[in-house]
Amino acid sequence: MNGAELLIRKAFEKGIEVCFANPGTTEMPVVRALDAVPGIRPVLGLFEGVCTGAADGYGRMTGKPAMVLLHLGPGLANGISNLHNARRARTPVLVVVGEHATWHRGYDPPLAMDIEALAGTFSGWYKTVSNAADIGKDTAEAISRSLSGQISTLILPYDLQLEEVDGSGQEADSAGEKPVDEASVDATARMLTSGGKAALVLGGKALGREGLMKAARIRAACGCDLIAETFPARMERGAGLPDVPRIPYLPEMAIAVLKPYNAFVFAGARKPVSFFGYKDVPGTLLDEGQETEIFGDEGPDILTVLEKLALRLGAPASPPRELLAEASDLPLPQGPLSGDKICTVLASLQPEGSIIVEEAITNSLFYHPLSAGAKPFSLLTLTGGSLGQGPACAVGAAIACPDRQVINFQADGAALYTLQSLWTQAKEGLNIVTLICSNRSYDILKLELNRLGASQPGPAASRLMDLSTVSWVRTAEGMGVPSAAVRTPEELARELSAALQQKGPKLIEMIL
Amino acid sequence: MNGAELLIRKAFEKGIEVCFANPGTTEMPVVRALDAVPGIRPVLGLFEGVCTGAADGYGRMTGKPAMVLLHLGPGLANGISNLHNARRARTPVLVVVGEHATWHRGYDPPLAMDIEALAGTFSGWYKTVSNAADIGKDTAEAISRSLSGQISTLILPYDLQLEEVDGSGQEADSAGEKPVDEASVDATARMLTSGGKAALVLGGKALGREGLMKAARIRAACGCDLIAETFPARMERGAGLPDVPRIPYLPEMAIAVLKPYNAFVFAGARKPVSFFGYKDVPGTLLDEGQETEIFGDEGPDILTVLEKLALRLGAPASPPRELLAEASDLPLPQGPLSGDKICTVLASLQPEGSIIVEEAITNSLFYHPLSAGAKPFSLLTLTGGSLGQGPACAVGAAIACPDRQVINFQADGAALYTLQSLWTQAKEGLNIVTLICSNRSYDILKLELNRLGASQPGPAASRLMDLSTVSWVRTAEGMGVPSAAVRTPEELARELSAALQQKGPKLIEMIL
Repeated sequence: MNGAELLIRKAFEKGIEVCFANPGTTEMPVVRALDAVPGIRPVLGLFEGVCTGAADGYGRMTGKPAMVLLHLGPGLANGISNLHNARRARTPVLVVVGEHATWHRGYDPPLAMDIEALAGTFSGWYKTVSNAADIGKDTAEAISRSLSGQISTLILPYDLQLEEVDGSGQEADSAGEKPVDEASVDATARMLTSGGKAALVLGGKALGREGLMKAARIRAACGCDLIAETFPARMERGAGLPDVPRIPYLPEMAIAVLKPYNAFVFAGARKPVSFFGYKDVPGTLLDEGQETEIFGDEGPDILTVLEKLALRLGAPASPPRELLAEASDLPLPQGPLSGDKICTVLASLQPEGSIIVEEAITNSLFYHPLSAGAKPFSLLTLTGGSLGQGPACAVGAAIACPDRQVINFQADGAALYTLQSLWTQAKEGLNIVTLICSNRSYDILKLELNRLGASQPGPAASRLMDLSTVSWVRTAEGMGVPSAAVRTPEELARELSAALQQKGPKLIEMIL
Repeated sequence: MNGAELLIRKAFEKGIEVCFANPGTTEMPVVRALDAVPGIRPVLGLFEGVCTGAADGYGRMTGKPAMVLLHLGPGLANGISNLHNARRARTPVLVVVGEHATWHRGYDPPLAMDIEALAGTFSGWYKTVSNAADIGKDTAEAISRSLSGQISTLILPYDLQLEEVDGSGQEADSAGEKPVDEASVDATARMLTSGGKAALVLGGKALGREGLMKAARIRAACGCDLIAETFPARMERGAGLPDVPRIPYLPEMAIAVLKPYNAFVFAGARKPVSFFGYKDVPGTLLDEGQETEIFGDEGPDILTVLEKLALRLGAPASPPRELLAEASDLPLPQGPLSGDKICTVLASLQPEGSIIVEEAITNSLFYHPLSAGAKPFSLLTLTGGSLGQGPACAVGAAIACPDRQVINFQADGAALYTLQSLWTQAKEGLNIVTLICSNRSYDILKLELNRLGASQPGPAASRLMDLSTVSWVRTAEGMGVPSAAVRTPEELARELSAALQQKGPKLIEMIL
């Protein structure tokens, strides 16, 4: 057995099932090992951001890491943007990067870069393996560390991949679960029942079905409001679940929503801050006078915290019916297509168990409220603000959950950063319907420019915001994905219904 | 005037003419400034690697930096791969990255990353501006530093871009030219005339017309061979110029080529090392017994060094005719298309003054020898080994030289990393013909796998090297570039001739 085979063997033993890869010369021993040690499914991305975004989607849906295999510093660099989104989503990911042979690195060959410096920008843990005998131990540690909701990066020199190893070697013990601090549960219960207006702000695992149900029981017991973080990594939603609104993206709107509360309990969520620091708008969205208790994602299991809180408050064993969303029946809208009409059609037609990967930016404003009574679904959003998350994340979600329908509700500008994802969708025959909002413009930037007092962009600014001439139908067909264009809600409903009846990927360009 | 306007004003004053941009919220003041302070042409890329690769191509053709405007850490990360190629090409580039407002950064908002850590991996010089009044001085220094053949990165917080400034402020003096060390010129002349077999290895600016002519005069005086570095940033070539072979890519071939020499003079080139460190192949390609003198790109002007050397050797004022390549007349090949036949057709048809951006990997093996007698042209190659350089570099070259024909001789796998470049080619109406070698495979990796003893890739490895189902014609048309597919040399010659008669971009998919 060589070092690369030990890597793959240990990874498989520790639960890795998929390897999203764009390998090169320095990763060839690992590629060979994927044949020598069967069990892990290799999935090719034609651009590294596809691989890393797919690992993010896979990790959000399974709670466990996929392996990402990338080529040296430049290959890793191409994957960083979606690793940044994965870091903000607290998704477990195992990144494996090949490095030049230990004896060759010093010559500074053309592809050499400071890989550790790159890895440090997104990894919770990273290591350049220095001894082939350690590969098993290092792989186990990388996977174990990733499970706390972070990215582990293993940098593996070429010669060590080829070195003969015996595969024994001591693994470090993984950390046990952190105990819940009973005193803060007591304090939180007192805060929630002290008479002021209170909100329970949910994030991370608290937005799963179980977390939402516990939160609704807490609400039933103390009357607090439930609010979700702005950009959930994964949120369960729809009829039969509590309808939890999200903190708005725009800071002025967020401040208005949060202002009425005397107290906040954060469960798996961070204290909210403005996405950007605008002139004359506060960066933090809470007042100093507002009380907070924070149970972060790094601490004890958030479901245990919520259960203890529910019990402390004497909550009912299950939430009362009136706190759960009823199934809605939205009428099919008429007239020219617009963001809100797309949201209505999607919320109406999405089948039960859908995974909605939402990176529609300006056109998805109404999707959250309109989907409250939709058939139950999982919602995956753009956690780190780095564009090009949607199409790649959809790949990973579809591979994680082959029996569920994935729908990528997607802005055109953002999709262009990782449009190579469509090729992997076709190649792997994934059940992904991509709904492209084709407004041929970085509309969000027009809003931002407007904020600076430029009601109309000048010629230079206009040139930098105009995406006209992209044909999504041809581009997607070039990548092997059957495609259609629609211009009205009726056409969209017809094409979407048809697409949902078929296996494999489909793209619908929604001309706005 | 605000800080962003000062940036643009100073950049324009210092010779910046183009800004390749993919901006976001934190760069909006700079976008506005491009309208407020006219003079710099904004060019949009739909992916950051397009912008950085374009700046590389622009810098290689003009010798001066373009500005690249990118959005925070994730946007910069997407641009690193082609900045790595630019670094290896010693191309001057000015990268401007927006950063969160100074007072907001501490909240760690979703898009926050360690931008300096990223910048450190490719920049010769970088700085986070800490004081709006310094923006003029910092911009001048960034540009001045870049001119020595490196990347300067200016990280500009949003609030400082908006701050009112007066635009005065002291600029640092730029460094003067480094003097030539006469003693090493003497030593080199002695080495070249000591009777052993000697080679003058050219790189960087020494591969321009002037450098090549000086090298040929040196050859005439002392009989040394001329060799070029493996991957030139820009090399002039064709009839009337000396035919300078390049050091082969594969280390075994390179060692065989270099072995006969007793002495090497490196002019603007590094000592060659193997691209990768393979088992049982040396990492450095020279023997210890081989004498070397090195005049690197960091030292005194390499053209001055070559002129002094030529004079010291009593070289003729111009090279004798027999040391310059004669115009060749290659017969049009027949039969199914292959790499060597493509090279022949291209070398025959490329018009005088063409800029050939070559990232054809396995299919360009014969292009260099076959193009020795072509009409004089500039050759731009993949300097840093990071794929996706070609289509983006072609954008920058075409913008730098609007009156010259750009031909991007391109591998399909590599093109997919930055295929969004096609959109910018269409949008800007650039005179670029893209010749895609469509073998639907990472063929180079099959060679590398073979090196490990796997004569046939297994099922996992096969999945990771097979690019089938990409239709380049549809994809490029989706991006707005008229396209055609060809299967024979005759078809290629016909389509290429037609494309060269037209303005604007065109893509020819060469089915292999």
